[in-house]
Amino acid sequence: MRPLMHPSADEISVEGILHALSDPDRVAIYASIVSAGCSQTCSSFLTLRDREIPKSTLSQHFKVLREAGLIRGERKGVEVQNTSRCAEVEERFPGLLGAILKAHAIQSDRAAKQKRKAARSSGN
Amino acid sequence: MRPLMHPSADEISVEGILHALSDPDRVAIYASIVSAGCSQTCSSFLTLRDREIPKSTLSQHFKVLREAGLIRGERKGVEVQNTSRCAEVEERFPGLLGAILKAHAIQSDRAAKQKRKAARSSGN
Repeated sequence: MRPLMHPSADEISVEGILHALSDPDRVAIYASIVSAGCSQTCSSFLTLRDREIPKSTLSQHFKVLREAGLIRGERKGVEVQNTSRCAEVEERFPGLLGAILKAHAIQSDRAAKQKRKAARSSGN
Repeated sequence: MRPLMHPSADEISVEGILHALSDPDRVAIYASIVSAGCSQTCSSFLTLRDREIPKSTLSQHFKVLREAGLIRGERKGVEVQNTSRCAEVEERFPGLLGAILKAHAIQSDRAAKQKRKAARSSGN
């Protein structure tokens, strides 16, 4: 089985982080791993933001997050346990992750409000 | 001549901003427009970070920045004058642009230090 590749803390780049977190599904996965505070497997995310995600797509998302240095994956039997590397990233780029997660939260809140407003309008 | 497309403030998305600013050259262009505080044309950037950039590549970079809602372009004769939309983005996603620009600055400083260190080592 191929070993999982992780960049060292020094190799973590802004470009890699921004690319990894520019996808809403990847941000949702990452935010969940950060907030869980414990390791999570890929299959915890088969339903994400009320949609089913194919396992191959999920694996690809995890690979991008891992190669950007945002998470660390560890093989346990047939599964990969994932934990956040936010302390390392925070030390390298203070404030960056918080700002990105906050911006995504603002955007999701706004979208949810608009959805509720549209639902109320169509119900009238 | 085709009109330049700009998203409205409401249409500016985190994904678009992160994608636009995940390229080091685009960040350098954007940081320069922000810090200039006045409009700049595409040709101000034909030399960027000590490298020559083809005009077609520059135009593409400006298009991505414009479509992400980061800059506003206005045709003046044969040139396009570009200004930052940072006030609008800041209102929508407080702290995001500052954190990204700061992270890129940290990374550039670190790279410059390593380059100087390598130059000193090879000179010994």
